Order: sequence, then structure tokens, then C-alpha cells
Amino acid sequence: METFFSFLEKRVDDCSSLLCVGLDPHVNDLSAPTAASALDFCLNLVKQTAPYAAAFKPNAAFFEVFGAEGWTALKQVIEAIDAESKRLGSLIPVILDAKRGDIASTAEAYAKSAFETLGAHCITLSPYLGKDSIEPFLNYPEKGVFLLCKTSNTGSGDLQDILVTIDDGPSNMVNRPSSVPLYEHVAKLAQTWNTKNNVGLVVGATHIDAMKRVRAAAPDLWFLAPGVGAQGGELELALKSGLRADGKGMLIPISRGISRAENPKLAAAEIRDQILEIREQLHQ
Amino acid sequence: METFFSFLEKRVDDCSSLLCVGLDPHVNDLSAPTAASALDFCLNLVKQTAPYAAAFKPNAAFFEVFGAEGWTALKQVIEAIDAESKRLGSLIPVILDAKRGDIASTAEAYAKSAFETLGAHCITLSPYLGKDSIEPFLNYPEKGVFLLCKTSNTGSGDLQDILVTIDDGPSNMVNRPSSVPLYEHVAKLAQTWNTKNNVGLVVGATHIDAMKRVRAAAPDLWFLAPGVGAQGGELELALKSGLRADGKGMLIPISRGISRAENPKLAAAEIRDQILEIREQLHQ
Repeated sequence: METFFSFLEKRVDDCSSLLCVGLDPHVNDLSAPTAASALDFCLNLVKQTAPYAAAFKPNAAFFEVFGAEGWTALKQVIEAIDAESKRLGSLIPVILDAKRGDIASTAEAYAKSAFETLGAHCITLSPYLGKDSIEPFLNYPEKGVFLLCKTSNTGSGDLQDILVTIDDGPSNMVNRPSSVPLYEHVAKLAQTWNTKNNVGLVVGATHIDAMKRVRAAAPDLWFLAPGVGAQGGELELALKSGLRADGKGMLIPISRGISRAENPKLAAAEIRDQILEIREQLHQ
Repeated sequence: METFFSFLEKRVDDCSSLLCVGLDPHVNDLSAPTAASALDFCLNLVKQTAPYAAAFKPNAAFFEVFGAEGWTALKQVIEAIDAESKRLGSLIPVILDAKRGDIASTAEAYAKSAFETLGAHCITLSPYLGKDSIEPFLNYPEKGVFLLCKTSNTGSGDLQDILVTIDDGPSNMVNRPSSVPLYEHVAKLAQTWNTKNNVGLVVGATHIDAMKRVRAAAPDLWFLAPGVGAQGGELELALKSGLRADGKGMLIPISRGISRAENPKLAAAEIRDQILEIREQLHQ
């Protein structure tokens, strides 16, 4: 049986890419404020960028805002990615960017909604409710999750940067309780929760020092690293700080940088190549 | 202009109730696994319990799991609550239990989805991404949010109970950095974010000591206190620990305890009265 991250790594190898194409049909970018227009916007992006996409990341909010019709469009976008995958002969993972987080039977319903009703392969989740809120998702052995760790926004510091005291052993001169930012504690928890190769982390490319700390705390995990481009994150610094020793372990999601380009296909190809070049320089 | 919590308090006075009726159309409780059946389940509950409901709380997950049809049903449930409100002559707030949390234009889209597309009056949100992720919701001056603070599940301790160090002034013998659980810090932040009377907190009735600490940290805020009944929380202890000095400030959400009762109308009336009795004893 395939795990989510072995599936993702296969696709990364197939297309030599760490680019994750964000599907954000923001109403301002559409020809009309309708679900049909959101669908057209995404189908066009999928068709143009699929050869260069290690993954696609539809953002649930921009579909939900159109109500039931938006939900139908979201499902159709995921179906279109599957169809394009088959045409290319290499299955492309779909990461539903939904940042859900709830408990017990509610979490089970969200997992079923994302993985069965919509057919996504992976979902972004908030860690705030703890491990038992994540488990209903991890119980799908072939599906994956990216947990919010250090997000790309300015306000991320309000909670994520707070110093927390973790008592991880008997207190003496050598082994004292240590203080680390909350996001680093989340990274360590995620590493222990990753027993089925299906837990990754969202780590903003706008906070390079934090990314280094997270990589040290979770050397094996995949990162989804938003913030390159539109939010001011620098690609080279991000890759240098976040790539794993094997030159993988990092997806770079780009949305507007591709969708607003004059030629989205060319933009995706260029970003894919740019990432590869930097990676080669770093791993010479 | 009315704020969300003045609107809620008016309804609390109108119906002499702190009961929040949860609308959780879990597939196991439906006559068929369909959106139509989820709709029937909720419409029946709304009709039977509206006179005793200070608020209704539909749970987004149990609708999303039915895809587009579930989304349509959710909108119809909210419309039915509005219609029932008009019939009763007292508007009943709808709290969308969705636990969303995202940044910038994505957060704006979630706010628009909940408050405009669906027509809810309030939404539950995760605080993990910080204040700027909450602001797009707070910018609707007549709408409200309940931020997750200390949730009712066992795993809530994984992050929420961690001791955090807050340096809130110059360090000396009198004023040293203090260590508090993360949930208490969230409560303090929420109190400072509540400049428009539209921020409340989710505080599980299953953690009584935590509830006391949160009430001390945020003396003015409304709590949404799940966990009474099905999850083992005790009503009297919860009210004693969480009510504000004015005998308000707390909504008790009940879902299965009403929906699975032989007579949901009677069950809702009894719980409403039970809450009132305990409150009177406490505030004699």
C-alpha cells in the first residue's frame, strides 16, 4: 500500500518539480463573480500547468463563498485534475487547503468530506485541538495532512511564536525544562505523530529563521511553504532553509504568481526550473 | 447599530434561556444517508425547540459531507431558523460551528461565505493564526465569533495546556514574566480583541478548573461551553464556574441530548428550565 508522501515523492520524481500550483479563484481574478467562472479559471490553470505541478492546492474558501455551486465546482476541479493526471500518465496529488480542525465524529465527517466526497488526497489542518482531532484523518492510510506550524502571515506570532516550556525529563543541571516557540513544539509533536508517513507541516517562506528551527526539529517531514512571491518570501532562502538533506521535503505553493501571469504555462515552467536550479546549486 | 452579543442577550432575555440547540445531522441519526434527510432532521429540531433556544448551532461538517446538496441544506436550515424566529417574534442567532481559520483574502472569503452566502450571525474560529486571521470576521460589526480557547476533547491538552511564558512588563521582583497555560493566554488576547462586543470563547464544560481560569482571565466574554451530557460535562459545575457575575455570559450547546430524546421539544424545555433553576440557586 502506498502512503501519501511516497505517492507525492513519486510525482515529484516524475515531473522533476517541487512546485505546488495553488488554485485560488478569488472573485477579483474572475471574469464574473460566479461558481462557473471559478471553475473555468481553475480548469484553465490545471490544463496549462499540470506538466509542471508536483501537486495542486485548491483553496476551499474561494469555492465555499459561492455556496452549493462552489462546492460542485470544487469537486469538478478535483475530477479534472484526476483526468489530466491520467492523460499525463502520472497521478498528481490534490491538497485541499481547508485548514479544518474539530473533534470526534465531527472530525470524521470533515475527513470523509475531503477524502471521499471531494476526492482530495491530502488536507491542511489546524493542530490547536490536539492529536485526537487529527487521528480521524490519519486513519485514512493513503491520505495525508499538512498541519499548520508557522504560518506566513504577520499575526502568526500572536500564538505561534510564544515561548512554551516543555518538561521532557527529570530536571537537573544537564536536563532542564526547555523553552521553545510554540511552532517548534508543534513540529516536534508532528514528527512523533508521523508513524504512517502521512503528516507534513505548513511553514511560511516568509519566516526563514523559523523555517530553519522547524527543519531541525522535524528533519524528515515534508513542508508546504507558502509566501514566496506575493507575500514577499524569497525562494532561494526558503529552499536553503527548508529542503531536506535529500533535496526533497518541500513543496512551494504559488497561486497568483502563476494565475496572473500573461502565460501561466510558461510561468509554471519557469518557476519549476528556477526551483530545480537553486536546488542543484545547494546540493552540488 | 446592534452588536452580536447585544443581539444574543436580547434573545436570552426574550426566551429566558441559555440553551444553544446543536444541529448535528450525523449520518447515524438520519433515516437515510442523504442531504434531504439531514435537512428534515434539522427542520424538525428547529420547529420543536425554537421557543427554548437562545441560539442554534449547525455543525458545518455534517452538511459538507453531503457535498453541494449538503451546502444547500445548510442554507435552508438557516433560512428556516429565520422564518421560525419571525413567527415567534424574536430573532434567534445562528452560530455556524465551522472552526475556520485562515489569512488575508482567504479569511475574507470564509467570512463572506458564513455571514453573507449562508446568512449565519456568528461563527466558531481557531485562534492559531493570530489576530489578523480573525479581523476579516470582526469587520462585520453586527456579526460575532467564538474563538477556540479550551476545547472539550481529551487531546485538547496537547497544545492548549502547555505552559507559555508571557513577558508583560519590565522584569523585577514584583513583575516577573509569568507562566500560564496557552488557553489562558488565548482568553486574555480575546478579551483585548473584543473592542466591538463581538468576540466570545469556546470553553469545554469537561474541564472545570480551566473554565474557572478562563472566566478569571476574561470576565466579560461570552462562553460557548460544549461537553455537557454526551461528553460527560456536568451542568451545575459548569454554570458555577463559567457564568458571569450578571448570571449570563454562557451558552450551553446540547445536540444529541435533544435530538435523540423521545420528545425533543420536551427535552429542550427541561434543559432550559434546569439551567434556569441552577442559575437562580447560584445567584440567590
